Amino acid sequence: MTAHILTIGDEILIGQIIDSNSAWMAEQLNLQGIRVTKIVSISDTAEAIREGLDDAFKKTDLVLMTGGLGPTKDDITKKTLAEYYGVEMSFHEESFERLSGMFARWGRETTPAHREQCFMPDNAKILTNKAGTAPGMWFANERKVAVSMPGVPYEMKYLMEHEVLPLIAETFPGKPISHRTILTIGEGESRIARRIQDIEENLPDHIKLAYLPNLGQVRLRLSATGDNLIELEKELEAQIALIEARIPEFVFGYEKDTIEKVMGELLLENKKTVGTAESCTGGLVAHRITSIPGSSAYYEGSVVAYSYALKEKLLNVDPAVLENHGAVSEETVKAMLKGLLENLGVDIGIAISGIAGPGGGTPEKPVGTIWIAVGDKNKANTLKLQLGKSRSNNIKYTATKALDMVRRFLLENA
Amino acid sequence: MTAHILTIGDEILIGQIIDSNSAWMAEQLNLQGIRVTKIVSISDTAEAIREGLDDAFKKTDLVLMTGGLGPTKDDITKKTLAEYYGVEMSFHEESFERLSGMFARWGRETTPAHREQCFMPDNAKILTNKAGTAPGMWFANERKVAVSMPGVPYEMKYLMEHEVLPLIAETFPGKPISHRTILTIGEGESRIARRIQDIEENLPDHIKLAYLPNLGQVRLRLSATGDNLIELEKELEAQIALIEARIPEFVFGYEKDTIEKVMGELLLENKKTVGTAESCTGGLVAHRITSIPGSSAYYEGSVVAYSYALKEKLLNVDPAVLENHGAVSEETVKAMLKGLLENLGVDIGIAISGIAGPGGGTPEKPVGTIWIAVGDKNKANTLKLQLGKSRSNNIKYTATKALDMVRRFLLENA
Repeated sequence: MTAHILTIGDEILIGQIIDSNSAWMAEQLNLQGIRVTKIVSISDTAEAIREGLDDAFKKTDLVLMTGGLGPTKDDITKKTLAEYYGVEMSFHEESFERLSGMFARWGRETTPAHREQCFMPDNAKILTNKAGTAPGMWFANERKVAVSMPGVPYEMKYLMEHEVLPLIAETFPGKPISHRTILTIGEGESRIARRIQDIEENLPDHIKLAYLPNLGQVRLRLSATGDNLIELEKELEAQIALIEARIPEFVFGYEKDTIEKVMGELLLENKKTVGTAESCTGGLVAHRITSIPGSSAYYEGSVVAYSYALKEKLLNVDPAVLENHGAVSEETVKAMLKGLLENLGVDIGIAISGIAGPGGGTPEKPVGTIWIAVGDKNKANTLKLQLGKSRSNNIKYTATKALDMVRRFLLENA
Repeated sequence: MTAHILTIGDEILIGQIIDSNSAWMAEQLNLQGIRVTKIVSISDTAEAIREGLDDAFKKTDLVLMTGGLGPTKDDITKKTLAEYYGVEMSFHEESFERLSGMFARWGRETTPAHREQCFMPDNAKILTNKAGTAPGMWFANERKVAVSMPGVPYEMKYLMEHEVLPLIAETFPGKPISHRTILTIGEGESRIARRIQDIEENLPDHIKLAYLPNLGQVRLRLSATGDNLIELEKELEAQIALIEARIPEFVFGYEKDTIEKVMGELLLENKKTVGTAESCTGGLVAHRITSIPGSSAYYEGSVVAYSYALKEKLLNVDPAVLENHGAVSEETVKAMLKGLLENLGVDIGIAISGIAGPGGGTPEKPVGTIWIAVGDKNKANTLKLQLGKSRSNNIKYTATKALDMVRRFLLENA
């Protein structure tokens, strides 16, 4: 089973946005055993859409489209699809009620353009979009299926997860495919590959291993195809156990775990609370901890102290420490950690200070020099990072590393 | 003048990497007056490449290809191109000398695979790649041009800038094209469309308007094609002025601005500092402010206070206020703001408290109820949001709204 992806809209063609939707959709389809053989970005003209569909249906039975579904004049996907299938458009009461309800909750009124947005091609199965205003549409003509979704990433993802992927599984039942992912942190792709080389070489032909690296983390994804799903899952389980036994110190989770989620679970288990004292990460560590639903059970609060003055005032850092060692030093992050534990009364603290860049570097402390301290009132682990020149990467990588240090601290001191 | 982009390789089709090359190439071509009408990702098979080229040349005279040029056996672009044009491959001495020289400098020897890599189709103009080992190739057949480049982003960029774009300008002297983008916040796509309906309807044929919405923000992009770039830019400027005059309260910037960047510039101009007191946004507002290089000039610090205890301790919130009105209330965010201004000594503060979800809602305060206060020691603006059920969207939307409230506060009270 194959599929094509068709993204509609000039914003990709003029290079204004990067098409991240297609990669995500392709990954989801692959997980369901559907191979994407072509991804095409076209302009939002009726001609380009018609041709795109014609071309796609010559090669495949499934086309996922995104874009061109808003209420404005340049959004012509829906009208073009009605013409393509030779059907009329009718007012879809249910969609309009949902839309009016949403606007009522926001204390606003719908416009005629919103009413217009609820006219739908007569042959479309309407897919409820709880993440936005434009519904998705499912068109089936004999065995050929076209799906139309908004291009806004979270709306597309909502529709894929709740409507489209289940319908695809129902309509195109394929050969079972099973995936398992091991999440690692703290070691690079090529070194992991070397350590598990023999395991990889001995994998049976129907099991494939992929390395998916991203800013200090590497996901190892095993995919198995076969006739018996239970058998496949057992086989994957056995391979996972082999790999994990080889690199236990780097494995922090599985599948869609995140380091902040795993850390949160460990805090809950150990009945400990956490807080952060951040300088160069500017609140990202706090944000990532609190992105987890229910984090209020173990997260108390944070102090972001950019200036010397606030490091002294909010975290009791001795001015002499800042004077003698500088804000980016082991002594300062240790002092920040101490002040955090005292002032916020949390069990475990994260303190971070560094030069995220692009400015602010010196010969002794170039951009990318970052100190982290993690610990409780009895013990602190510190780490110095020497990263690159990208402010955004430095901040993200440091946050990940700090969260992992809490995880390791909890494991060591449980 | 139009062009197609063809990216070759399974890594995009399985969703392992996001195709950021195409956006960059499209932007460069647009700046040179060449409209990209299609971007296609295909598998690295000879059949897919042949079909991709045939399809493209039916519609356009210029195809830029990336990928499939490495030394491994799945890299078949070059061989396929030789077959496509019906030519032989010959050993390219100059390329091999460059390659051997590079390896010598690294203290390594070339392998037979590297010699193989220097066999080139006889009709190709070889484009020297100083950023890597695989040269680019330029194929011209009558007026139809195909260009093949490596998929590694910095190698592709090197070849584009130093070889391909100059050759394109020489081969296809084109009509200029110009783009301008207005960034708005605070009003939906369809309402904006209604307010500028007559402007949009009166646009000349050679100017196109597109609406690009995303979480509370809408970008309006105008694209103009014509003979005279200076004239086009004047025309766009005039249209921009018309649109902006119609919706001045919603326009916050242009092109690649962000709300945090614009807010930062206003703070700098007004010589004011900012800090945040966050509950449900958990540090995201601080993170977004500090994502801007140089933000330390106007950002001092933040307090993230999840618990009642920390709201009292770090922000001096009167326990009676929390008791009587609850943590999610206008009274509480006002008290948080006051405490923030006192304790951190910043000029302007942002205080946020709400129920991000998915849990924690009550009938009176359902998930998505969020209060924001923004102000200084003389004045505070407050806002109640009633958002949806997605924790992540609620947090992001609230952060954007809060940053915009600072921008508005500065404009009102400058």
